[in-house]
Amino acid sequence: MEKKIAVIRGDGIGPEIMTQALAVLDAVAEKFGHTFRYAEAPMGGNAIDAFGVPLPDASLQTCLESDAALLSAVGGPKWDTIDPAIRPEKGLLALRSGMGLYANLRPAQLIPQLRRACPLRPDIVDRGIDFMVVRELIGGAYFGEHKTWEENGETAASDLMIYREHEIRRILRVGFETAMKRGRRMCSVDKANVLDSSKLWRRLVNEMAAEYPEVELRHMYVDNCAMQLVRDPSQFDVIVTENLFGDILSDEASQITGSIGMLPSASLGDGTRGLYEPIHGSAPDIAGQDKANPIGMILAAAMMLRYSLDMPAEADAVEAAVNTALESGLRTGDILEPGKTAVGCAGMGQAIAANL
Amino acid sequence: MEKKIAVIRGDGIGPEIMTQALAVLDAVAEKFGHTFRYAEAPMGGNAIDAFGVPLPDASLQTCLESDAALLSAVGGPKWDTIDPAIRPEKGLLALRSGMGLYANLRPAQLIPQLRRACPLRPDIVDRGIDFMVVRELIGGAYFGEHKTWEENGETAASDLMIYREHEIRRILRVGFETAMKRGRRMCSVDKANVLDSSKLWRRLVNEMAAEYPEVELRHMYVDNCAMQLVRDPSQFDVIVTENLFGDILSDEASQITGSIGMLPSASLGDGTRGLYEPIHGSAPDIAGQDKANPIGMILAAAMMLRYSLDMPAEADAVEAAVNTALESGLRTGDILEPGKTAVGCAGMGQAIAANL
Ligand SMILES: CC(C)[C@H](C(=O)O)[C@@H](O)C(=O)O
Ligand SMILES: CC(C)[C@H](C(=O)O)[C@@H](O)C(=O)O
Repeated sequence: MEKKIAVIRGDGIGPEIMTQALAVLDAVAEKFGHTFRYAEAPMGGNAIDAFGVPLPDASLQTCLESDAALLSAVGGPKWDTIDPAIRPEKGLLALRSGMGLYANLRPAQLIPQLRRACPLRPDIVDRGIDFMVVRELIGGAYFGEHKTWEENGETAASDLMIYREHEIRRILRVGFETAMKRGRRMCSVDKANVLDSSKLWRRLVNEMAAEYPEVELRHMYVDNCAMQLVRDPSQFDVIVTENLFGDILSDEASQITGSIGMLPSASLGDGTRGLYEPIHGSAPDIAGQDKANPIGMILAAAMMLRYSLDMPAEADAVEAAVNTALESGLRTGDILEPGKTAVGCAGMGQAIAANL
Repeated sequence: MEKKIAVIRGDGIGPEIMTQALAVLDAVAEKFGHTFRYAEAPMGGNAIDAFGVPLPDASLQTCLESDAALLSAVGGPKWDTIDPAIRPEKGLLALRSGMGLYANLRPAQLIPQLRRACPLRPDIVDRGIDFMVVRELIGGAYFGEHKTWEENGETAASDLMIYREHEIRRILRVGFETAMKRGRRMCSVDKANVLDSSKLWRRLVNEMAAEYPEVELRHMYVDNCAMQLVRDPSQFDVIVTENLFGDILSDEASQITGSIGMLPSASLGDGTRGLYEPIHGSAPDIAGQDKANPIGMILAAAMMLRYSLDMPAEADAVEAAVNTALESGLRTGDILEPGKTAVGCAGMGQAIAANL
């Protein structure tokens, strides 16, 4: 098959981890007889420097004309003090909404070889950690009206947490369907004891639940969920929640696995086109030093093969290649332990590509 | 001294833990020569049953005429399905706003005797956990306009996250002052890369920081904070944040200490009058069985002595009495470990009172 992939090399360690992910994809193409055509789509700080905006129209266009988009990470201190209207994050938000990516899928999984990096007590870890956070991505307080104004001699500011029925239904659909493919347990997270948007959310969850009698449904308040993730993450299979709660809980969930540098994320809309990225940031402090861990980026590419390109065997092969590299003891600096073999970003990427 | 204390016995295990806290206060009164007059202020599910509203006007009035209010816990499944307008939580929110309690102080502290209950890895726990979450309590999405309406043939709902300058300044003042009395490190948590209310928040933090040059200030995004609390809680001294973020992060922080049943919380306004409660819920499943852990409630009473009644020696005495009870091996069911002595709610309360 021939597929077109938009490539967003990003800032900081972005370009070097992307190089490794593309090398792995090239190895996949060779092994399985595919052709991947890469189309550059600049975004983030580098785009601000080159074009004055974090997401040039041409980049969005490239993504919309591709079968999927790969993104490394954007931002850095260099752009922290510029006009908020054109900060790197704005590019990311514009890309999500421009591509209609309302569903963010974030697996939280313990990687057995990195078990010791998990910050939880061993007996809690032993119960297992393997769940998926399904986060609504283009609604809520992120995209409701933002306002700052003067009133009675002082400044006031507000953000509107707003959801319409169809926005909630489509993400719940993803939640239920994801649960059907996994352990058939779904936990819907809201703050229905306080927020109207959460009350609507909960009502729609209960309605849709009738269509999924096989799915064991639970409702949980967001504050309780933040506790339960630490107390006993093994209780979760699929968590579905709105944008802001999902932002907070999915990061907490990732940290709980202890494998921040290793976890990917997929953002999907109505069709198969999606945006795939590692969950970690652009780590400007180690950029260009061949120190970054490319595994999160490479596993993001695997998710792309699975969800957007309909290549499950290829995705399995990449995941197995990562596993083999870890089994053989290779470790980048962030996950190095005594007795293991230190490698750089390129060394890790090459080993994984070679394992294919 | 003579002090008037409003007593909200609440629902579920509320009445039984309150009985123990009042017994401890009586022991304090006898030992230190004070008179505490208790005024009943019904609130929550029991108030709905008796008066049809979760917070009768007379209860609010009683609280406003007292030097401080003690609250156990409200709510339970019995009232989960009633009209949202009169649910038990509404009483709590009305009480907070009626008393002008804009600052919620939540200590997150490892209790050495319960170290093994901490869900984090021992080497992380060894670095220590001792910080204070300062949460804004009567602003933001909790008190902004809540709306549900029909639009284009579907339902929509919204909640307004709104902050005015004076609302932010007064809570930041509490944050900085708390930091000055503790380790002089303050972490302000927001989502300034997305929200206007957070941008205003961050600007005001930076302005006020000029008045507190001794305080080491850090800004952190809420998603990152949710991760850092798990990764290394020892990095925090004081966390200051808005209402909804504070709801989520303070519960996560409590869980991290592993001592949910033991932690108190204080809610304060401009004067010394405050509302004191344990952070745990009303645990209807064990209500009336003498199984509840009264320590969170008793430590809430200690906080009241310290913050509202200006009785620091008395507060120290209560905290020491709790400590002695734990040292002597007494444990309620929720914190029982092999080799310790199981006691009920009343047994624990009596032991603590006797230690005075
Ligand atoms: C950079 C930021 C705007 C973004 C978000 O909050 O969505 C990030 O935290 C994420 O989770 O992808
Ligand atoms: C009961 C609920 C409204 C309340 C809140 O969200 O403030 C509770 O979670 C708390 O933190 O005290």
